[in-house]
Amino acid sequence: MRIDILAVIPEMLEGPLNNSIIKKAQESGTATIKIHSLRNYSDNKHNRIDDYAYSAGAGMVLRVEPVYKAISDLKSQRTYDEIIYTSPDGEVFNQQQANQLSTYDNIIILCGHYKGIDQRIRDHLITKEISIGDYVLTGGELAAAIITDSVIRLLPGAMGDETSALTDSFQDGLLAPPVYTRPADFNGWKVPDVLLSGNDAAVEEWKMQQALERTKKLRPDLLDDLDQNN
Amino acid sequence: MRIDILAVIPEMLEGPLNNSIIKKAQESGTATIKIHSLRNYSDNKHNRIDDYAYSAGAGMVLRVEPVYKAISDLKSQRTYDEIIYTSPDGEVFNQQQANQLSTYDNIIILCGHYKGIDQRIRDHLITKEISIGDYVLTGGELAAAIITDSVIRLLPGAMGDETSALTDSFQDGLLAPPVYTRPADFNGWKVPDVLLSGNDAAVEEWKMQQALERTKKLRPDLLDDLDQNN
Repeated sequence: MRIDILAVIPEMLEGPLNNSIIKKAQESGTATIKIHSLRNYSDNKHNRIDDYAYSAGAGMVLRVEPVYKAISDLKSQRTYDEIIYTSPDGEVFNQQQANQLSTYDNIIILCGHYKGIDQRIRDHLITKEISIGDYVLTGGELAAAIITDSVIRLLPGAMGDETSALTDSFQDGLLAPPVYTRPADFNGWKVPDVLLSGNDAAVEEWKMQQALERTKKLRPDLLDDLDQNN
Repeated sequence: MRIDILAVIPEMLEGPLNNSIIKKAQESGTATIKIHSLRNYSDNKHNRIDDYAYSAGAGMVLRVEPVYKAISDLKSQRTYDEIIYTSPDGEVFNQQQANQLSTYDNIIILCGHYKGIDQRIRDHLITKEISIGDYVLTGGELAAAIITDSVIRLLPGAMGDETSALTDSFQDGLLAPPVYTRPADFNGWKVPDVLLSGNDAAVEEWKMQQALERTKKLRPDLLDDLDQNN
């Protein structure tokens, strides 16, 4: 899979996309992630890619031209499944969307910017708008990092153990049960006896019951979704 | 405001927290952000901070001891308003929570890790669990970056123009209206006439109507929330 990210501040993406699982996925050829600075597509000598909005308040708006040039350049080289824009008013991102994006060959992610981007970019160039949550960030770079991270880790071979992603929270519609590791007793804080019992059936029952209880307590909306799907 | 972040992979946070508005906020003394590597609090010679979970499947679990040592060390130096853990089964983060966190003096954010952290950390040391959305990441570092970014930008003086954050999406319960910048005509893609009219009243009416229309179309749930609050 290939992900092209168009960013105003590409430096913000270097740490997040060059470590851990995402780094290994690139080294093994499972994923190609290219970060492009929009300033390289500026059409003026000051590399200015944003400007004041027409009849709006404070904040700068990303201009049409550099984005048009960058996307045209990429599209001339290969076919893209989606051209995504990160914005607080996009479709709210979730695990199902991450799963779907992970089946694509090529996607572009355009990072949001300050008070927004010229609406004509969204109307004419973008095929999908994604919000990672109901909060505002200094820019879309972190949102692009989140989408990339959540998608790349799902690619076959990206994680050490192929079963690891399947037991994540959300994949079965339930929150994950609590986990414990050594020592069994830390200053009097103890691991539940059942996990030390060696009784596999009892452990499985405990885990399912814990997952259900946690979901009921913390995220009852997920159980409603499960009911509707069954 | 001071934010202490406890991370397994601190390198992931350098780019996100050393650029743009977040960098300026630190330089001006508005915010102090300290990133701590949990490996520095390891109690064994291999700096091992995670271990296999009791009776669980694939994936490593963060151990109690290094986290206990790190948090105890920080708490001995100052009082913290919240000790936050980033987890997909936490309270779902939103702009109201960002607003609230921005009023605090000191917070700790413990980054989530692979298949989770020993439950005893959550039971005994954490005061608040936050999820940035219904998706799974390779680690909690990006979630910590998101929370930090969304909070720091709200601090007085962090953004160039004090009014800028007040016109964000979500702050008034509506999505922001579309924005446009020059040129007024790009290859036949045109800016709406009203924005070029110079008629302030007409512009304001258009913006409110666009904000309402967009919210109704894209996020009707936000309008329901507004109704319930009025």
